[in-house]
Amino acid sequence: MNLRMDYNNVLSSRIGKEGITQADFDALKPAAEKASQTMADNRPAMKWRELPYNQAEIVAGIKAYAAEMKDGIDAFVVLGIGGSALGPMAVQQALNHPFYNELPREKRTANGAADSFPKLYVVDNVDPERLVYLFQTIDPTRCLFNVISKSGSTSETMSQFMIIKALLEERLGKEAARKRIVCTTDKEKGNLIKIAKEEDYKYFIVPDGVGGRFSQLCPVGLLPAAFCGIDIGGLLEGAAQMDERCKSPCIHENPAYMFAALHVMALNKGKNVTVVMPYADSLKFISDWFAQLWGESLGKHFDLDGNVVNVGQTPVKALGVTDQHSQVQLYAEGPYDKMIVLLGVDEYRETITIPKLYEDMPSLGFLGGVTHNDLIKNEQLATEYALTKSGRMNMTLTLPRVTPQTLGQLLYFFEVATAYAGYLLNIDPFDQPGVEEGKNATYALFGRPGYEAKKAEMDAAPPKDDKYVM
Amino acid sequence: MNLRMDYNNVLSSRIGKEGITQADFDALKPAAEKASQTMADNRPAMKWRELPYNQAEIVAGIKAYAAEMKDGIDAFVVLGIGGSALGPMAVQQALNHPFYNELPREKRTANGAADSFPKLYVVDNVDPERLVYLFQTIDPTRCLFNVISKSGSTSETMSQFMIIKALLEERLGKEAARKRIVCTTDKEKGNLIKIAKEEDYKYFIVPDGVGGRFSQLCPVGLLPAAFCGIDIGGLLEGAAQMDERCKSPCIHENPAYMFAALHVMALNKGKNVTVVMPYADSLKFISDWFAQLWGESLGKHFDLDGNVVNVGQTPVKALGVTDQHSQVQLYAEGPYDKMIVLLGVDEYRETITIPKLYEDMPSLGFLGGVTHNDLIKNEQLATEYALTKSGRMNMTLTLPRVTPQTLGQLLYFFEVATAYAGYLLNIDPFDQPGVEEGKNATYALFGRPGYEAKKAEMDAAPPKDDKYVM
Repeated sequence: MNLRMDYNNVLSSRIGKEGITQADFDALKPAAEKASQTMADNRPAMKWRELPYNQAEIVAGIKAYAAEMKDGIDAFVVLGIGGSALGPMAVQQALNHPFYNELPREKRTANGAADSFPKLYVVDNVDPERLVYLFQTIDPTRCLFNVISKSGSTSETMSQFMIIKALLEERLGKEAARKRIVCTTDKEKGNLIKIAKEEDYKYFIVPDGVGGRFSQLCPVGLLPAAFCGIDIGGLLEGAAQMDERCKSPCIHENPAYMFAALHVMALNKGKNVTVVMPYADSLKFISDWFAQLWGESLGKHFDLDGNVVNVGQTPVKALGVTDQHSQVQLYAEGPYDKMIVLLGVDEYRETITIPKLYEDMPSLGFLGGVTHNDLIKNEQLATEYALTKSGRMNMTLTLPRVTPQTLGQLLYFFEVATAYAGYLLNIDPFDQPGVEEGKNATYALFGRPGYEAKKAEMDAAPPKDDKYVM
Repeated sequence: MNLRMDYNNVLSSRIGKEGITQADFDALKPAAEKASQTMADNRPAMKWRELPYNQAEIVAGIKAYAAEMKDGIDAFVVLGIGGSALGPMAVQQALNHPFYNELPREKRTANGAADSFPKLYVVDNVDPERLVYLFQTIDPTRCLFNVISKSGSTSETMSQFMIIKALLEERLGKEAARKRIVCTTDKEKGNLIKIAKEEDYKYFIVPDGVGGRFSQLCPVGLLPAAFCGIDIGGLLEGAAQMDERCKSPCIHENPAYMFAALHVMALNKGKNVTVVMPYADSLKFISDWFAQLWGESLGKHFDLDGNVVNVGQTPVKALGVTDQHSQVQLYAEGPYDKMIVLLGVDEYRETITIPKLYEDMPSLGFLGGVTHNDLIKNEQLATEYALTKSGRMNMTLTLPRVTPQTLGQLLYFFEVATAYAGYLLNIDPFDQPGVEEGKNATYALFGRPGYEAKKAEMDAAPPKDDKYVM
């Protein structure tokens, strides 16, 4: 079962003047060849590319730990933000029951396994209401908290950890509290590994060369998934299958490179927005995960030669058919500023049939005997038709079914595409220098030692004018 | 308690060359005056503007019905899509417990009332897995289903209704099933009012002149809210307060007009994207609701004079601080193609303090004794500072607290702003002609009588080339 990509509808032969032409492909060729070479040269440094292959022992360790711990807890709680949160949420939504946390324990049996699994919560914000309300919902002493921070200095995650550590130690005592915390962090750098070793927490390692948004297939994503009964080996198998399909340096033989190339050509033609619109509830959060991957990797001030480029393409999250009633008006009639990626599924996990009723009412009668499977599929095809007819660039990715393998393919596909798009744009897809300013300003506002100069700079900024407050 | 808008950071005096200048305001003046006149002229037709004033009887009817029914059901289930779903979800998320459906009944006591309330589900997609999985989670015979469709011909909603009607009649018999369905629809047009009258369902009316995306403050949104214990009178009071603040025809005295004017000037300067980024979990789904309102209202092919304009601004949903770790890199370093609207809260409903721990670790020590309230607020200010420093257009809306009144203000503010932005752009903010093509193509694919010509047109489209499928 393989992910398919259909890009007929980005071509000028089908959508007219806004489409991609042979001349566009020809113009991209030198950059594409250079980017392919860079991808090959840099592969050893891109450690996330090896995750499908080098984790047999790690997977075994994760599974053993999950098996040991899962029956003693009600919930597995991720403390993480960015890639540490978006990946776990996307995989859980894709592969488990959509009302997973609302089911009684005995029904939380992922993939038909005889075992049952704890609830999953992902705490990815510091809204002060979040933890308070969470602990009105679940008993924190019956949870296992997974603190995920590669650097160990992520303020949001580490502050949550500090609150929870104190709470658990107060309620359970130090020794029992210790067993309720598991860390995922760097093997030697930063505070969290130091704390984990000193306080004797169980920990898993984020490998070198695996950045936050490329970390779903390492313990960052695998540990929460394993605790919810997800076949993590299957995810990695799928990633390996996709890696195999992405071996060629030629965009015409490499689907991830082609996805990237089409997007970069679209960007060059003024499409500064890309919409990812899954036609499946289960894939809804893939859009959120992709939005970080694509937005943070490609949105850059400088290129690799030090020129100011201010490049990037803004990812937009949508859901079919739902957003046909919300966003498609804009997509079909608004500016020609978008690539729209429909993400379909051949076979859903359930079938539901509309009964034959109201046969005398034309707008209802035709629905009788039809399945929702047919309805969602035909609406997807109809949206594709309408977008194409109005000359809007669109393409379709299709998963035969949503399984650990096909999901692993999809995640790895997007990762390779993102890296390649970065090199096509001649920027570094793996850094995020633009978030430092905000972090430093936060430290300055709290008066953290060492940030006095930043504080002085902020204090010296011209004051706001009340005239512009209404 | 009033919504505040601070637009200092859209001005060139603060962000430099990408900012709005006095010349931009001067250039907009004729269009602004014309739009203000159109708003005044069209006010009688914009029936959504009167919803804060003319619903005393309707509110009483909704409250009485909710009081009568709520204790006999486990869950209130909205069958609706687009405005019929996004509004109810946004209000529920804003005002009720974030884990509302997971709480035991006795804890589902909104606003400290002694009463308890049913769960709320919103079924806004036809993914075949959705209803199947929902009914593995709740017993459909213990639910009240609210079928919301003004036209009565929304395929998604009506097909759900048909499935559920058959299921309820089979399990409960016709008479008991009848009491498990309540309709919200047009007072005379379409199938649903006809069905409601013939089959004797309770129903509420969507008033004339109130389109889907402007319907949250009519029974479409008020009925689900009332069933969850939300003070719907407070929502309407807040809307009236905002209406009072939006009386002036002058943008400098009318915050909603100013919001619209700033966005249109931004659009004219190439900002084809607007990000709404609440710094509060409770306001997360306001971004989704706004995305429909802004996207569907302003994304248009023709202007009011029949010229092809393909205008529109793409709304992007974000969440602070979470998306600082996902999207802010792009916002701060990528193209100058965005307006960023931060949506803050002065006072959260809870306070949580970080304990003093790890004082010897600089990146953790400064957090000791700080509250998450301070952390989220300072991160918001730091993001604002970073965006401003990098010359990115940003503005801040602030709610003193999230209450029914301030939420009503915010919803009404966005509605007025959207309508005014439409007239500034010289387009019709109230239609959505671009969704017809997709609907008709769906009918054609199902062979619905009357759509033979569309089917023939689709069949005549050039076939796809397998060469472009990978």
